[in-house]
Amino acid sequence: MSDTTNLRIPGPTSLPQSVREAGSRQMVNHRGPEFKALLGRVTAGLQRGFRTTDDVLILTASGTGALEACIVNFLSPGDPVLAVSIGEFGERFAAIARAFGADVTKLDVEPGRAAEPTAVAEALQAMATAGRAPRAVLLTHNETSTGVTNPLASIAAAVHETAPDALLIVDGISGLGALPFETDGWGLDVVATGSQKSWMVPPGLAMVSVSERAWAASETATMPRYYFDLRAARTSADKGETPWTPAVGICFALDAALEAIEAEGYEAIFARHAAVGAATRAGLAAMGFELFADPAHASDTVTSVRMPPGADWTAFSRELRSRGLVVAGAQGRLAGSVFRIGHLGDVQVDDILRALETIEAGSLALGIPVTRGVAVEAARAAAAAAGRQLVGSGAV
Amino acid sequence: MSDTTNLRIPGPTSLPQSVREAGSRQMVNHRGPEFKALLGRVTAGLQRGFRTTDDVLILTASGTGALEACIVNFLSPGDPVLAVSIGEFGERFAAIARAFGADVTKLDVEPGRAAEPTAVAEALQAMATAGRAPRAVLLTHNETSTGVTNPLASIAAAVHETAPDALLIVDGISGLGALPFETDGWGLDVVATGSQKSWMVPPGLAMVSVSERAWAASETATMPRYYFDLRAARTSADKGETPWTPAVGICFALDAALEAIEAEGYEAIFARHAAVGAATRAGLAAMGFELFADPAHASDTVTSVRMPPGADWTAFSRELRSRGLVVAGAQGRLAGSVFRIGHLGDVQVDDILRALETIEAGSLALGIPVTRGVAVEAARAAAAAAGRQLVGSGAV
Repeated sequence: MSDTTNLRIPGPTSLPQSVREAGSRQMVNHRGPEFKALLGRVTAGLQRGFRTTDDVLILTASGTGALEACIVNFLSPGDPVLAVSIGEFGERFAAIARAFGADVTKLDVEPGRAAEPTAVAEALQAMATAGRAPRAVLLTHNETSTGVTNPLASIAAAVHETAPDALLIVDGISGLGALPFETDGWGLDVVATGSQKSWMVPPGLAMVSVSERAWAASETATMPRYYFDLRAARTSADKGETPWTPAVGICFALDAALEAIEAEGYEAIFARHAAVGAATRAGLAAMGFELFADPAHASDTVTSVRMPPGADWTAFSRELRSRGLVVAGAQGRLAGSVFRIGHLGDVQVDDILRALETIEAGSLALGIPVTRGVAVEAARAAAAAAGRQLVGSGAV
Repeated sequence: MSDTTNLRIPGPTSLPQSVREAGSRQMVNHRGPEFKALLGRVTAGLQRGFRTTDDVLILTASGTGALEACIVNFLSPGDPVLAVSIGEFGERFAAIARAFGADVTKLDVEPGRAAEPTAVAEALQAMATAGRAPRAVLLTHNETSTGVTNPLASIAAAVHETAPDALLIVDGISGLGALPFETDGWGLDVVATGSQKSWMVPPGLAMVSVSERAWAASETATMPRYYFDLRAARTSADKGETPWTPAVGICFALDAALEAIEAEGYEAIFARHAAVGAATRAGLAAMGFELFADPAHASDTVTSVRMPPGADWTAFSRELRSRGLVVAGAQGRLAGSVFRIGHLGDVQVDDILRALETIEAGSLALGIPVTRGVAVEAARAAAAAAGRQLVGSGAV
């Protein structure tokens, strides 16, 4: 793959040059002073990104490893858990809880839609009435498989009101750092993210925040754990170390990325993602593609699009790739019928305009009927309007 | 840390320039054709390194994660297991098995010594007599904490003879790729290694081989697992993928490292490690340091050395670091009383000679009485003799 490839998948995301250079530094002793300073700096930067004063621990794993850590540290076999699933990653969170013996109740939301806070509250009440008051609620912030962002602040508020003793455990992997997020402000007990998403860092690190009441729960939780034991991670972090050898190179990269992120500023980053999200949706819709997600909850980090009738995903993907654009297929039940465009991390509106041009040309080459010559202008206008809206709303 | 630092710890090991460059490539789609080709190439290279036709699976984790995978995929709670421990990493392997509910019997060997095949056979017989015939034997190939290499071929033979139904599960993290090793030839069912050791790659990947009979055991094993479920890894590997987003950059690095390794050749690599191991031991002994490991089983990848009486590890470490040499402290019970010199991966005899010079100068500066001016010559002679011995024995 050439360096000019337009990598439009929802992670791994493209790496800025400064991140690539930092990641290629020579190794250091992971139990020495340089790494200790690095770990302290990176942890503080993540706390600012998570908007939390809770502990944030860095694990050497993919995001799925962090989801496992979110389960096994805080629950015991048999614990009732409500898993709110709006797509494949919600399914995965529930599957991990089941694999370790939790008594999982699923709240399934139709793919493409967000969870309703009232539906979550009703599910919690029903569990309590049945004598199975949930020990934890598993939520996805941004569902990468469908391109839907849950109204997490409202859902969290509903959980706190209906089931105040339940831990709020959040998969923040593909939204945190790109979309407004308030770990402390929304009262989230455990939040996970992954290096290869908005953080613009290669995959291999996962980060988890843990609230005081989650730590208290970890003391009595009996699910088996070793590699993902967050208490071991906390003990080591207090000494400026990790319990097991960390992915040192990716930590170097994360340090550089956090520097770039803070130089841009989170408010500017959120506005940029709002603009690229709006541009992607407007451009595709103008061409005639059908967007998969409910417009009210469409994600600003990833857009899911229905494959046009009769069009073949494999041929479509190959055609776009030959033109320098890499998009993602769908997973699970949506495989073949949906494709996805990632727009998170190191992405500008121009990257989206280029992607739209390629999709237009590639579609026409394959005989997929799309409206010509309108996508870029529609995208530009939507990006500009998104910027105005954000400014107008006082969000930036 | 400067690029000229002599990083003499037993991992992360120094990265060759080609590995650093490969590891800094731009990201690709981990479910696309480039990554598929890479995964196939790297897996085949690892199989040659492991000397196996078994599946070799690549996990995004530290070595400790691989050890957890070695346990949870093949055992059920309550299964009798013999854990042969010759140091901290043997302790860790046993602790993981216990954390997931195995009925662990420990065979503890005095730190600094290797396990005796006859002692292992006796422990297995005792377990069988007690009606607790072991389902698996956990072995460490090269114990990083003490600098001891177990006589794995002989121990494996003893296990096969005494407990033919027991799975042989081996922590090969700090020896495999640097020391002679025969996964198939020695009948090892499950073998784990880590990218940051002899493979000259940043930490963050762990690799595990699985024999046919280990796969059969995985079908009935009931320990809970999700992230480390090797069956999921095998299913994805058959499609040229990993089940969860892999550490793509470290895979790039591993690809380049395997190319360098095969260009040098494993026999030459084993001879080089024999030479640097002999040089390290001879040089330190000539200066007057007391080596920790039984000379009959001293490791050629890491040397443990007793701190001279009255010398303080922290001051010693700081002094050496100020002179451009980074050595490792000890872990667990040996902390403060032992230091360790790593000599695996991208290391030449000259790196050891430099380290010896620094240790001599640093020791004298601290008032630690060492014999002057003899270490380098003793090390050179030992390296040359090791080369002759290998040639004479037909091992290379």
